[in-house]
Amino acid sequence: MHSVRFTAETSSNGVVERDFLVGEIPGVLWSPVSGSDHAPLVLMGHGGGLHKKTPALMARAHDLVTTWGFTVAAVDAPGHGDRPCTAEDEQARAGLRQALTAGENEAFESISVRYAISLAERAVPEWQATLDALQQLPEIGTEAPIGYGGGITLGTAIGIPLTAIEPRITAAIFGGGFFPHVALIEAATRITVPIQFLLPWDDEHVDRQSSLALFDAFASTEKTLHANPGDHRTIRWHGLDNEFLPRHLGRRVTTPS
Amino acid sequence: MHSVRFTAETSSNGVVERDFLVGEIPGVLWSPVSGSDHAPLVLMGHGGGLHKKTPALMARAHDLVTTWGFTVAAVDAPGHGDRPCTAEDEQARAGLRQALTAGENEAFESISVRYAISLAERAVPEWQATLDALQQLPEIGTEAPIGYGGGITLGTAIGIPLTAIEPRITAAIFGGGFFPHVALIEAATRITVPIQFLLPWDDEHVDRQSSLALFDAFASTEKTLHANPGDHRTIRWHGLDNEFLPRHLGRRVTTPS
Repeated sequence: MHSVRFTAETSSNGVVERDFLVGEIPGVLWSPVSGSDHAPLVLMGHGGGLHKKTPALMARAHDLVTTWGFTVAAVDAPGHGDRPCTAEDEQARAGLRQALTAGENEAFESISVRYAISLAERAVPEWQATLDALQQLPEIGTEAPIGYGGGITLGTAIGIPLTAIEPRITAAIFGGGFFPHVALIEAATRITVPIQFLLPWDDEHVDRQSSLALFDAFASTEKTLHANPGDHRTIRWHGLDNEFLPRHLGRRVTTPS
Repeated sequence: MHSVRFTAETSSNGVVERDFLVGEIPGVLWSPVSGSDHAPLVLMGHGGGLHKKTPALMARAHDLVTTWGFTVAAVDAPGHGDRPCTAEDEQARAGLRQALTAGENEAFESISVRYAISLAERAVPEWQATLDALQQLPEIGTEAPIGYGGGITLGTAIGIPLTAIEPRITAAIFGGGFFPHVALIEAATRITVPIQFLLPWDDEHVDRQSSLALFDAFASTEKTLHANPGDHRTIRWHGLDNEFLPRHLGRRVTTPS
């Protein structure tokens, strides 16, 4: 089993940011300067083509740390951020660009789906190894409640199969903006933990009904669909329930430092 | 023009409750004991078969008064609460009961739609007359921002045509649980104010797609769909944005008395 190897540390506005490696997986851990003994841990996914320190992801992470005293972890998905690109990654991206340019919607969808399945197959065991390693840290341990913090698109395409097989995750935020394939819908039917699902109402590429079918598939008795107008790249969320994770993982308000 | 005639007054937990009549329309006004000069006014609709002092409605009204210092008004819809039942009301209700008992879903829907249209045709001018009268009260006046506070079912079947023609309403909460007919969808396309839309995801009688089409129809650039599992009669809402109306009508936090 790999352990967490910290490679850099900075801090700002009450948040300690530590870069780490688990084997070859690059990750980052955010936690309160004031300490975080067994505080809830939120695993944060990033969108397709993005990386673990994307501004929107960091903003949500900082909010969870400073408002609730949580610890937040993010890793680069395979072929993303600081990860090497395999021939498969290169080929899939070239195919996606070409289909988009040519306006070939069916090709775009089928390449997207195949690539998302491949990324999730690689990413799910990586998240599990990362979680194993993080739980060896004394400030996290096995007592910290664990949630999956999104985001939409690739973060959900990876997060759903992860949550379906990972009993340590007890609440999850998912979302739309990608093509929910049959295996993903099937994985959703095996998820029973509380779910918050964020749907961009007017996605440019993804049919709304398929995302609604995905929300419908979760077996969770406690699930909330939240939709706002817009495409997933430009949406401005409003009226979001920002206390979803604190409510389910336990509140632990820190004194600002 | 009718004026507000107060008929009873009580107070509890910092909330003054005043029953009133505007012409023959019975209503109730909740406001902070500590005063409410030109505080935002929320018009609250009740569900089908219910009345202006239904417990869930009163709970939301008390919360708006004590948390935000708002004034809240509710009236009995035609044929509901303290209002007389016309022959049309009696006939529609008998028809609904019979269709339900016989499991005649199409008859149930067509009677529901016709009755909702008739109730809204009577209720919209009544709400406008009530609003005219309330604005004559010095503590409300014409400066108080005005919102429509729901609820689902009949409250929305009346609230949508009201909001579509009433420029004084600048934010509205609507919801599902009833059959959205063509004229209602058309009225929604003329609404541009911020909307919060509450959808019971598993309504026993109402097809989910028709409610999603209603949400889709609002011309508002700022609109939020919030769905939780359940039928409209038994749903337990969670993760709701309770600051929707304060955000759009202006916050006015009172000191608890």
